[in-house]
Amino acid sequence: MPLENSFYTAEMQGPYVTVPLGRFELEEGGVIEELELAVATYGELNKAKDNAILVPTWFSGTHATWWQVYIGPGRALDPEKYFIVVVNQIGNGLSTSPHTTGDASIAMERFPHVRIGDDVRAQEQLLREKYGVERLALVVGGSMGAQQTWEWAVRFPDKVQRAAPIAGTAQNTPHDFLFTQTLMDAITSDPAWAGGRYTSHADVADGLRRHADIWAVMGLTTDFWKSGFWKDLPPVVEGLGWSTFEEFQQNFTRLLFGLMDPNALLTMGWKWQRGDVARNAGGDLAAALGRVSAKTFVMPIDSDMFFPPRDCEAEQQLTPGAELRVLPSIAGHFGLFGFEQTYLDAVDAHLRELLEAEV
Amino acid sequence: MPLENSFYTAEMQGPYVTVPLGRFELEEGGVIEELELAVATYGELNKAKDNAILVPTWFSGTHATWWQVYIGPGRALDPEKYFIVVVNQIGNGLSTSPHTTGDASIAMERFPHVRIGDDVRAQEQLLREKYGVERLALVVGGSMGAQQTWEWAVRFPDKVQRAAPIAGTAQNTPHDFLFTQTLMDAITSDPAWAGGRYTSHADVADGLRRHADIWAVMGLTTDFWKSGFWKDLPPVVEGLGWSTFEEFQQNFTRLLFGLMDPNALLTMGWKWQRGDVARNAGGDLAAALGRVSAKTFVMPIDSDMFFPPRDCEAEQQLTPGAELRVLPSIAGHFGLFGFEQTYLDAVDAHLRELLEAEV
Repeated sequence: MPLENSFYTAEMQGPYVTVPLGRFELEEGGVIEELELAVATYGELNKAKDNAILVPTWFSGTHATWWQVYIGPGRALDPEKYFIVVVNQIGNGLSTSPHTTGDASIAMERFPHVRIGDDVRAQEQLLREKYGVERLALVVGGSMGAQQTWEWAVRFPDKVQRAAPIAGTAQNTPHDFLFTQTLMDAITSDPAWAGGRYTSHADVADGLRRHADIWAVMGLTTDFWKSGFWKDLPPVVEGLGWSTFEEFQQNFTRLLFGLMDPNALLTMGWKWQRGDVARNAGGDLAAALGRVSAKTFVMPIDSDMFFPPRDCEAEQQLTPGAELRVLPSIAGHFGLFGFEQTYLDAVDAHLRELLEAEV
Repeated sequence: MPLENSFYTAEMQGPYVTVPLGRFELEEGGVIEELELAVATYGELNKAKDNAILVPTWFSGTHATWWQVYIGPGRALDPEKYFIVVVNQIGNGLSTSPHTTGDASIAMERFPHVRIGDDVRAQEQLLREKYGVERLALVVGGSMGAQQTWEWAVRFPDKVQRAAPIAGTAQNTPHDFLFTQTLMDAITSDPAWAGGRYTSHADVADGLRRHADIWAVMGLTTDFWKSGFWKDLPPVVEGLGWSTFEEFQQNFTRLLFGLMDPNALLTMGWKWQRGDVARNAGGDLAAALGRVSAKTFVMPIDSDMFFPPRDCEAEQQLTPGAELRVLPSIAGHFGLFGFEQTYLDAVDAHLRELLEAEV
């Protein structure tokens, strides 16, 4: 029985379609008998089918932030020029996920391990079968979306003309593995998680709160919290604003992450920990990145505490022709939410330049 | 009944003496009827009593790291020239602490809240009554030791000739408050913590492990973990080395923090969260720091994720005549452990210059 959770609805996230891909074999050996991807598209595919942009989603995210913050007429991701396909990652609560699947063999704690490579293969199948797209003008994604962007560029070099991994790495670092584990442990240490067999995400409120609180520390920055920058942000829920940082924590990070499904977060966390394009080249990161033929802008956020620019720069330097474009934000990794116009302007300027580049 | 814990012994930490200070009233309203400070001294007090250096300890720390890493003949903190007094902070497991006190009214979960100002007042009393020291050549401490160093310089400006707060702030930031809370919640969310009424720290192993794992993420850095820097570090316990980062986590951070007492960590965590010299000036940080007359070197560590140089620099700029001396380390906040000779050389150079400065 799928669990009810209003967070994972079109009402909360914006319209999307569910596309069945049939039986899908996972890299770790599991099988999803009827894989469904939740897909939101903006704009129209042209006749040449060469104006498609793919956007894979980040940890805990959906397509929502993309249409709310990154996509729009006059923006770099302009639906009047491009056919923009945002694909929710497997296990994120909208695509096939532990708490929503009707297939008892993979429901809840039985959900199989999914890898970044699985998402990318499923997305490739989706684009080819559903839209007849064989080549992408751009793949762009943030965080775990950057992991998928890198995987696309390495795995399908002929299909990716341009790539923009934002605030994420091609090969997850040990530090990020450890960080993600603290997020997962915050959830699984809650007795109410019950080995993944809870009956409502609300039962796991304590674990979700601790998970959110670690995000508040690692996702944001000392400057963000100290500056009072958050004071001017619009509330997530009407009437639940904030005048102290404790209230911001309560009504932003705790509220938002508290709406989510624990097993979905764990599925994504496990996947994040193991993102590594070097798997495509026998463990050789330089060889894997050497395969990239896409024009690539590597775009870390300057104040990001767990995907710092230096880690992203190391990968940029291994990628033929890639350029480093550092994005400014006071909000660390959560700069991805697009709190600042300066950040959004920088993203747009770089993506516009990338999209206009000859390839 | 005090709990047994071999971590808090002279065998593990090095020799120290226990100095009774009598009845001690705490700023939050609690009382410790017989406050005892665990004190380790190195070198001799001269006749003029003007060669004393005070070192307060950091969160989870004791005097051990100081004699092992920072103090020695030929070093800036030279026991052949100075009388160096390392005072274990209240609640750290060696000075009066929840799990060691014989006073049932303050044992375990009944231990009262202690503030940075309490430690500093107790240290002032200790120096005056026990050693007849009215003026310190230097106060130097790292992290929570830096909080105490700042508090000394603001509260007793006439008694502090020089101050060197390393990797810590005068006023705790919101981000650090939130970070410290995640450390504390990792412990208190363990059902075995039992509201502070456990019968052995080992019972709280799960909570201590999650606490250590958050430290592994925030205390160190992506570079530290990725570089393999840790490979060359000597093991904490003979025979328990490491060849993978998971083993380093197991045999370094988990092992070390797993030896400690949960209530001691919580006492220190609560104190850390509320470190704020502005309390001495009606909440006005600039006014408080304006009182400092000590020659002050503010010494953040360049890669520190929660006391970043920019936060320390903001306080340095409010302090008359203070200078910013940034220390280099790949290890973030845990650079304090002195893993790198380059770091230690920088500390020594700055402290030597400070100690030689006319005041």
